[in-house]
Amino acid sequence: MRDVLPDEVALRDWAMAQILAVYRRHGFVRIETPAVESLRLLLRSDGGENEKLIYKILKRGDKLAAAGAEDLADLGLRFDLTVPLVRYYAHNLARLPQPLKAIQIGPVWRAERPQQGRYRQFTQCDIDILGVASEVAEIELILATSEALAALGLKDLTVRINDRRLLGAMVAHCGFEPGRAGSVFIALDKLDKVGRDGVAAELRETGHAPAAVERLLDGLAAGATPAALRGLLGARVDEAVWRGLQRVLDTVEAQAAGRFRLAFDATLVRGMGYYTGPIFEVQHGGSTSSIAGGGRYDRMVGKFIGRDVPATGFSIGFERVISILLERGPVAEAEAERVVLVFPESEGLGPVLALARDLREQGKQVLLEARAKRLGKQLQDLETRGFRRIGVLGPDGVVEWREPRVGGAGETSA
Amino acid sequence: MRDVLPDEVALRDWAMAQILAVYRRHGFVRIETPAVESLRLLLRSDGGENEKLIYKILKRGDKLAAAGAEDLADLGLRFDLTVPLVRYYAHNLARLPQPLKAIQIGPVWRAERPQQGRYRQFTQCDIDILGVASEVAEIELILATSEALAALGLKDLTVRINDRRLLGAMVAHCGFEPGRAGSVFIALDKLDKVGRDGVAAELRETGHAPAAVERLLDGLAAGATPAALRGLLGARVDEAVWRGLQRVLDTVEAQAAGRFRLAFDATLVRGMGYYTGPIFEVQHGGSTSSIAGGGRYDRMVGKFIGRDVPATGFSIGFERVISILLERGPVAEAEAERVVLVFPESEGLGPVLALARDLREQGKQVLLEARAKRLGKQLQDLETRGFRRIGVLGPDGVVEWREPRVGGAGETSA
Repeated sequence: MRDVLPDEVALRDWAMAQILAVYRRHGFVRIETPAVESLRLLLRSDGGENEKLIYKILKRGDKLAAAGAEDLADLGLRFDLTVPLVRYYAHNLARLPQPLKAIQIGPVWRAERPQQGRYRQFTQCDIDILGVASEVAEIELILATSEALAALGLKDLTVRINDRRLLGAMVAHCGFEPGRAGSVFIALDKLDKVGRDGVAAELRETGHAPAAVERLLDGLAAGATPAALRGLLGARVDEAVWRGLQRVLDTVEAQAAGRFRLAFDATLVRGMGYYTGPIFEVQHGGSTSSIAGGGRYDRMVGKFIGRDVPATGFSIGFERVISILLERGPVAEAEAERVVLVFPESEGLGPVLALARDLREQGKQVLLEARAKRLGKQLQDLETRGFRRIGVLGPDGVVEWREPRVGGAGETSA
Repeated sequence: MRDVLPDEVALRDWAMAQILAVYRRHGFVRIETPAVESLRLLLRSDGGENEKLIYKILKRGDKLAAAGAEDLADLGLRFDLTVPLVRYYAHNLARLPQPLKAIQIGPVWRAERPQQGRYRQFTQCDIDILGVASEVAEIELILATSEALAALGLKDLTVRINDRRLLGAMVAHCGFEPGRAGSVFIALDKLDKVGRDGVAAELRETGHAPAAVERLLDGLAAGATPAALRGLLGARVDEAVWRGLQRVLDTVEAQAAGRFRLAFDATLVRGMGYYTGPIFEVQHGGSTSSIAGGGRYDRMVGKFIGRDVPATGFSIGFERVISILLERGPVAEAEAERVVLVFPESEGLGPVLALARDLREQGKQVLLEARAKRLGKQLQDLETRGFRRIGVLGPDGVVEWREPRVGGAGETSA
């Protein structure tokens, strides 16, 4: 876990505000769940590997005294926002709008081995639609998420889409053993990183039939269009799946209007075990790693409320997006000009406070600094910190405005 | 801990944005620390009772296997934002602006017994100035905080101010045993709640001399002005303390301009053990409980970096403020009109998406809803949810706008 310095917080706050504004315009409402959930809940999700990374909270008082070594904790920090969302939905059903279009932005925790660019506390930024079975949900999520990313200034976006039911049918069609689709997905998910040969090797090592492996990788080879797959899979895939996929592709394409690319990708897998239908990811620039991802998970809510509720979600990889934005340099604090007023400490504060109030009422960010013994050095330091508008108040309350030299430090012009 | 429903999240987000905007205009910058800190850090603060309420995080893997029963945790959830601030300041000193004017808004956790209006996860909202020894810091904090509260629409604000050094001198002057000032402060802090007799009883029960108790309560009786106390305490209080107090009173009074009241209150104590100078609280309306509080704590940073750094902070009781705002009813979503577009599910989505895009570009929040079988009931439900502008699209893409009757549900006008 890490501290965030002021400049990065400003960037994060700005990015969050952009994303939130787009999502709100798309009719989503923000909800909040606590950071801490019951361990029983966290462990019964389909969180896979993440369940091993839960920070558990030690029981307290009598409960701790009575606890066995295997039973020291009954609470844990959330490792994603999807499990809490489903619990929240089940818990507050009667008081929530139906369907629910929820925004969640907040920290999650995973006890991962620290590595470059990966933190044990990080922010997730999800939108989910609960209660919409039709592909209108997918269309809305894709349009809202791509617009939010565009609002951050991210160009060159590609949205890739696939459907878990196609992947499932393909695995069956190729002759893999029934019930072992999960391990096929796990290997296939690494295609971007290890290439066709790497995937083939992993599949054979996992004990899958070489013939099935070849058929799968041939069938999914780059360029596999919905039409080609449809010819291959025939009656293994329901007509409605193809129709839904085509509707998403056509509708989103018509709305994209060149602002992002949309592509069917038969090799797209997504890691989580709970997806049941369409899945999608967003790539930025030439990078193969995704900056957002999501899909349909129609069977998760049922585990909590006893009846299935159709659900779809799209999650922006907030930390990855921030690291892309940071590479571009500091955020332009365009709206509010920053001003410093240097005042003589020993005098009455009336004049400097009155001036500060006027400037603040104009929306400016005004920093007051007591005049240091070495004014020249103080002004130089302020310029180094990026202040471009510095007023020095004399004992008479008169302000002398300093215009910094282009390029920063140095003598003042006055 | 609790879930927050969409309407309250909207109010909280709005309140946070107002507060942040004021603080930024006053030259503060937001910083972020992780939710989890080392237990060693949390336990070495002057957090008093709060240290007993820490949620501890269970060690993992080999560390847990090797741990004794007393040693099961080495991390904990932060119980306030001051301890993490000081750790952050010490850790990032070279990369932070000097002096640091920091904003922190975020959740903290305390394992308190649940009670009305008190939660185990709650939001704190602090500003702190590190590195300013003069009372300019107090003046800036009081002006920024009162302006932030006013920006939330809170009127009838009273800022009370006192100084721990006056309290200390008073306790010595009255003849309490040296070194037992802490227990005198704890009893005196309850004056608002239990009254003079209650405080006197507690002080006598704690073993303080009845004569000292009487002298103290007489000396601090309502109406004790700085001048009266000065006469009483004489050389026990440094000249600079009086001068500083008077400067804060005069300067803030001149700036308050009727927007809030400022009052010296010789009985103001504040609970925390770490205060070293001026302390302040804000009351709203006739309530005796405070909605914000703070003070100077010049000796806390020294514990971390080996040299004292002057520090002052002011914390808004965010949850209390939100409960006041909630009593006033829902937040007026003035800026962005909310619109619902009801569309025929079986048709192409082009027309409704195009219309939604136009409205969103105008800043409106647009919710899309598939047309239900019983349109009348659907429209009624939407009106009950507060939507005042509802467009129903026909199969031809033509929009019929419904104007709801005043008072909500019922027939549509079309």
